[in-house]
Amino acid sequence: MARLISWAENADERFPAALAELYSRVGRGWRVGITGPPGAGKSTLVNELARLARERGETVGILAVDPSSPFSGGALLGDRIRMEERTLDEGVFIRSMASRGSHGGLARAAVDACDVMDAFGLDSILLETVGVGQAEYDVLGAVDTVVVVLCPGAGDGVQAMKAGLLEVADVMVVNKADLPGADRLIADMNEAVHVRFLPNRDWEVPVVACSAGTQFGVEAVWEAIAGHRAHLESRDLAARRRGKRLDRIRNAVGEGLAEELWTTKGWGALAERELTGERTPYEVADSILKTVLAGVSAAPAASGGARA
Amino acid sequence: MARLISWAENADERFPAALAELYSRVGRGWRVGITGPPGAGKSTLVNELARLARERGETVGILAVDPSSPFSGGALLGDRIRMEERTLDEGVFIRSMASRGSHGGLARAAVDACDVMDAFGLDSILLETVGVGQAEYDVLGAVDTVVVVLCPGAGDGVQAMKAGLLEVADVMVVNKADLPGADRLIADMNEAVHVRFLPNRDWEVPVVACSAGTQFGVEAVWEAIAGHRAHLESRDLAARRRGKRLDRIRNAVGEGLAEELWTTKGWGALAERELTGERTPYEVADSILKTVLAGVSAAPAASGGARA
Repeated sequence: MARLISWAENADERFPAALAELYSRVGRGWRVGITGPPGAGKSTLVNELARLARERGETVGILAVDPSSPFSGGALLGDRIRMEERTLDEGVFIRSMASRGSHGGLARAAVDACDVMDAFGLDSILLETVGVGQAEYDVLGAVDTVVVVLCPGAGDGVQAMKAGLLEVADVMVVNKADLPGADRLIADMNEAVHVRFLPNRDWEVPVVACSAGTQFGVEAVWEAIAGHRAHLESRDLAARRRGKRLDRIRNAVGEGLAEELWTTKGWGALAERELTGERTPYEVADSILKTVLAGVSAAPAASGGARA
Repeated sequence: MARLISWAENADERFPAALAELYSRVGRGWRVGITGPPGAGKSTLVNELARLARERGETVGILAVDPSSPFSGGALLGDRIRMEERTLDEGVFIRSMASRGSHGGLARAAVDACDVMDAFGLDSILLETVGVGQAEYDVLGAVDTVVVVLCPGAGDGVQAMKAGLLEVADVMVVNKADLPGADRLIADMNEAVHVRFLPNRDWEVPVVACSAGTQFGVEAVWEAIAGHRAHLESRDLAARRRGKRLDRIRNAVGEGLAEELWTTKGWGALAERELTGERTPYEVADSILKTVLAGVSAAPAASGGARA
């Protein structure tokens, strides 16, 4: 499992074939994305959810995705160390993954890693990610249940609303519920969730108070996730998962085409010739697009070819 | 200018033509990317750099890019308000831009906005961004000079090194240089920059101490940026910028192809038919890729077509 995830992370060419061998076993695990601001206590919550799962005899995979690793408030390392108690348990698999900058690569690797953990039979897969930047959206788009973790203070509630975090949440957790301001945050979130967003959804996002550090409310978070799972399983789970797979196909096709056109098909060299004087990158891209779409069946001739 | 940037931000279909009209005027402004952890004082530094530029009679564009807006430590809004003193000055144009989740869209919009500000004659364009996630890498990849801002505390120096921040830095700023630990951080950065990375580079990354809040050292930061500019202008600036434009073409072609293939060319529907049973998304993507590359001259027939 660890080796396959490394292959996924490094975009090793052996990965697709390996995944294909396992793919019939993918789909039984439940994938939970856990996101929220640094300091909200995501890692502690993940740790406690894993503990709970183990007490119930389930196996757990944890993937900590950290797209902007230098600036996650320095918590990642410490949190991982605290998680070590879980690593002595063979029913828990823990892995972290950080970006080294390649566009879109992290989200793809994270989803691939989920597939691997799923295929190896882990019952729950907890995918922890910071923030809702582009990479995180792609990651969260691939899970079954999104848990947004907030904590009192720092105006996170308002900011979360502004940033559309509520739009991606399936379960809203107010962590550190024993801190001042928690009641207000819970009330705000309840209002936001129930009044503002309910009309457009068939799932009523629960707002769960919890204090993962003292284990208070962790069970309620678990139940909320299970509730969302039951909801989806009674409805369009298969179609949802299928849609996510189609998104992955589309991304892979787009990336693969650009790569092939540029290298083996010689369009990179053509773009270089076409990028003269005052043409914008979009004009050049557009003329290439039109020519390719009109019917390039092999490498374009070295001359001409791309005219709008 | 504001309207064009809005068009860029919203991927308005009028934008490419508008950019084409302006494009002959693009290339005179200097683009500076300013990145670093939340709390390092990036916004204050940007504000002070803008002040300095104005004192020297130059015009300035400021673009604050915030890919994970909810979690930037809440500083964005406050910093923007503090920046208001600059907004009364017609020689300064300020704009912020946040992600709403579309993959790659933010980086593209940010670079487009730089082109617009450049075309409108702004002498310096300061692009402020948090972290080095994927979107930020794409943004930073489009500027001329990358300034990495750190401040004492929180182990940021070590983390920056780990995360490859030094690899993208053209100028390293240790802000809040009056705080405890600053001397150590400056020494560490100097060692890292000079000993570890110099052998592979022809530009010696300067480490500049500054305290933007008290205006100490801001001039030195400005000079370091000017030094990097002079260095590039004496060497491969044109080729560098050309390379960045080619990257944009490639991205635009890849995205455009995926979009067209999926919608007007009917490959989305085909992918849906092909995604059966136990085939992985990559297998389906691969068979589509092969067929398209082998020579699709128009829409694929509704049946068959994509077999590996």
